[in-house]
Amino acid sequence: MNSEAQPGVVYLVGAGPGDPGLLTLRALRLLQTADVVLPDDLVSDEVLALASPSALVVPVGKRCGQPRITQAGIHALMLEHATATRSVLRLKSGDPLVFGRAGEEIDFLTEHHIPFEIVPGITAAFAVAAELKTPLTDRSSASKLIFATAHHAAPQPGTPARLELAPKWDGAFPKDATLVIYMPGRNFRLLADDLIASGIDAETPCVAVSKASTADERVHRTTLKQLEDEAIGPAPVLMLIGYAIR
Amino acid sequence: MNSEAQPGVVYLVGAGPGDPGLLTLRALRLLQTADVVLPDDLVSDEVLALASPSALVVPVGKRCGQPRITQAGIHALMLEHATATRSVLRLKSGDPLVFGRAGEEIDFLTEHHIPFEIVPGITAAFAVAAELKTPLTDRSSASKLIFATAHHAAPQPGTPARLELAPKWDGAFPKDATLVIYMPGRNFRLLADDLIASGIDAETPCVAVSKASTADERVHRTTLKQLEDEAIGPAPVLMLIGYAIR
Repeated sequence: MNSEAQPGVVYLVGAGPGDPGLLTLRALRLLQTADVVLPDDLVSDEVLALASPSALVVPVGKRCGQPRITQAGIHALMLEHATATRSVLRLKSGDPLVFGRAGEEIDFLTEHHIPFEIVPGITAAFAVAAELKTPLTDRSSASKLIFATAHHAAPQPGTPARLELAPKWDGAFPKDATLVIYMPGRNFRLLADDLIASGIDAETPCVAVSKASTADERVHRTTLKQLEDEAIGPAPVLMLIGYAIR
Repeated sequence: MNSEAQPGVVYLVGAGPGDPGLLTLRALRLLQTADVVLPDDLVSDEVLALASPSALVVPVGKRCGQPRITQAGIHALMLEHATATRSVLRLKSGDPLVFGRAGEEIDFLTEHHIPFEIVPGITAAFAVAAELKTPLTDRSSASKLIFATAHHAAPQPGTPARLELAPKWDGAFPKDATLVIYMPGRNFRLLADDLIASGIDAETPCVAVSKASTADERVHRTTLKQLEDEAIGPAPVLMLIGYAIR
């Protein structure tokens, strides 16, 4: 587990939330020794600064406003460099197996017989909770922890864009859970209304954290009922909802 | 974030799943410099070996068969050493804010005005998924990731102990989720039946991993319907359930 990055191998590695102190020892070792680094947009500059000076760093983020690199384009880069017997670090923010389309990269690497290793990372929810000093589970109020995303359904002509939990819950939402929403979009008020409609109490505590673990971090503590779009800072935003949140 | 452990401060730190390579850089730095280390039972020997040779290490695990240390006893140890201006590392396996009773320790430290910092860790689910090379979410089959525990309800006299998800779901279980069960107990068949009764399809893929990230690891891949108690190795066991599991 402490060996350096090997030629022809692809490493799918979690870079954590941004703070280099939250990299794993394994991730640091690979970052220092990989020939090629393919980071997502949200991987921080502080983390990338730890790559080998001789490494080829090719950002492969797909956020709005950036030149678009397709998932197929990322696959092609991994194949090209691994085939040329370079060690390839595919660096994803947070943990690589949570909301990161890792399944598609795993399938591609498997189909092309490219050896690969996966290294977990600290997901944003854990870093945010540590910073806020709030437990995510609680013996009396939260026996479950749920990670979800929200998405924008395609707007119908003539109607406003509608944000929905993707997809809806079947039945009532469990009352004894902490809910973490990754990529909540920008219409927080509508999202909160959707959650209340799905059975979550309107008085449930809620924290929205913008740019977590950076100098520009902004924290908005409220309840689902009182959540205000204007009070929440720019993306990326993470939302924590539940009675375990202090 | 890179400073050494400070006198009189308590650090609630995630030790990850056992492999020292999955410690964060911050956790390693604190482990190397703390005066007192209070590890849970599941913190691995390989991780503890990284503590300062001069550190006082007091195991505070509460597993069956061990001398029992109460939660109040752990609080008293933290208070005693912090008051004596020692740096105290409270080391928990995985992430400290997930199923670790951290809330009680946070409340205690706050009430006693003891300064503290929390450092996240790699939770077992992420380490197991990385090792199995399986995504935990998937755009087509798993838009949610749910961590839960199971517990043994107190047996009534004359009836067998009954294992239940703690507590039951309200309404149907979401179909598009990956479910991770920490501390599933030993009656896996009954647990699987409970899950099926709560609305999870009996054919859902299921993996039970015993002693994850150790040399004695055992993996049992099956479906909820075909899960067999005898096929699953000793505790700790982690169960992953869902169609995203490959």
